[in-house]
Amino acid sequence: MARKQGSHADITGPRLRAAALRLFARHGFAAVSMRQIAAEIGVQAGALYLYTSDKQALLFDLMRDHLEHLLADWSPPDAPPEAQLESFVRHHIGYHLDRPDLVFIAYMELRNLEPANFAVIEGLRRDYEDQLETILKRGQAAGDFAVPDTKLATLALIAMLTGVTTWYREGGRLDRETVLSIYWDMARKSVAARSPDGAKQG
Amino acid sequence: MARKQGSHADITGPRLRAAALRLFARHGFAAVSMRQIAAEIGVQAGALYLYTSDKQALLFDLMRDHLEHLLADWSPPDAPPEAQLESFVRHHIGYHLDRPDLVFIAYMELRNLEPANFAVIEGLRRDYEDQLETILKRGQAAGDFAVPDTKLATLALIAMLTGVTTWYREGGRLDRETVLSIYWDMARKSVAARSPDGAKQG
Repeated sequence: MARKQGSHADITGPRLRAAALRLFARHGFAAVSMRQIAAEIGVQAGALYLYTSDKQALLFDLMRDHLEHLLADWSPPDAPPEAQLESFVRHHIGYHLDRPDLVFIAYMELRNLEPANFAVIEGLRRDYEDQLETILKRGQAAGDFAVPDTKLATLALIAMLTGVTTWYREGGRLDRETVLSIYWDMARKSVAARSPDGAKQG
Repeated sequence: MARKQGSHADITGPRLRAAALRLFARHGFAAVSMRQIAAEIGVQAGALYLYTSDKQALLFDLMRDHLEHLLADWSPPDAPPEAQLESFVRHHIGYHLDRPDLVFIAYMELRNLEPANFAVIEGLRRDYEDQLETILKRGQAAGDFAVPDTKLATLALIAMLTGVTTWYREGGRLDRETVLSIYWDMARKSVAARSPDGAKQG
């Protein structure tokens, strides 16, 4: 989104994006009007166009920023593949648990992106998937992991980990660290290269 | 949905539901009007009310029927836990790959269910999750599986398996049987009770 100078724009821009995210998540992109978004932050509908060109731009900015921040926030530790995988699993779950509305939007509103915007979002999503696949390939090469197809294993793991956002609530039966440990245990085992007699399968 | 007698109702009812599903999946429940649904099947808007009380009833019927059919279509084989788990994994992926629009709706339109309807759908969803958790508990008791929390393992596995519908396309790089085998391999390992030396951890 284009930035305007001055404190008014600095405050209204983020509030606008937060309001759009909240309304898109609650009602769906197609059902929300610019008028509703304006009402949510207490400005006239016409004033929104000082901050964004249209509703499509708002959606695209939310999804692009989400993926760009996710990518920027992750860097693999200088460590063996299994430790890198653990780091990825914990980062992915933690990052997504903090942003359930964005996760929901980023999945369900893909259909409402214009083609050029969709291509950008898909590219960023692939960049992120590549981060995990690189770890799996390293582990595969080292004989630590045994996955028949690193691309499929990437998609399977990401779906499993992201699923936490659909049911986890702070203050629920299990605390976040317990949930992280359990998911890490399953993720680790799902790709591990151990035959039943304990030898690496390579 | 209330059934009307006669061939006209028998044909229009299913066409109405198929049209509603298609439009909800493409545009979102909140953005679709009864008028649009009527136009999609070529009848007057008023005629829809012969077949359904309102849009909420259409959504609820679609989601309830989806889960009831899913439950009715699954029966665990009389077999050891690992074979039951394989059967569940293959059934779940196959059933969902055949119905991507329903999977999408069933997840993203939960927010649009009225509370009483939401409670029914959540109950059916739990019934289905219980089918998998029962297998995990059996395997845990037999020492075949080692999962720290059978409920979390259930949710993690279902998210992983359902994720296939977001990317799989017939005629793509991998055929369905290859995809099923790879997911089964990961699911099996993720819950397996094998220490690195091959002994069951019980």
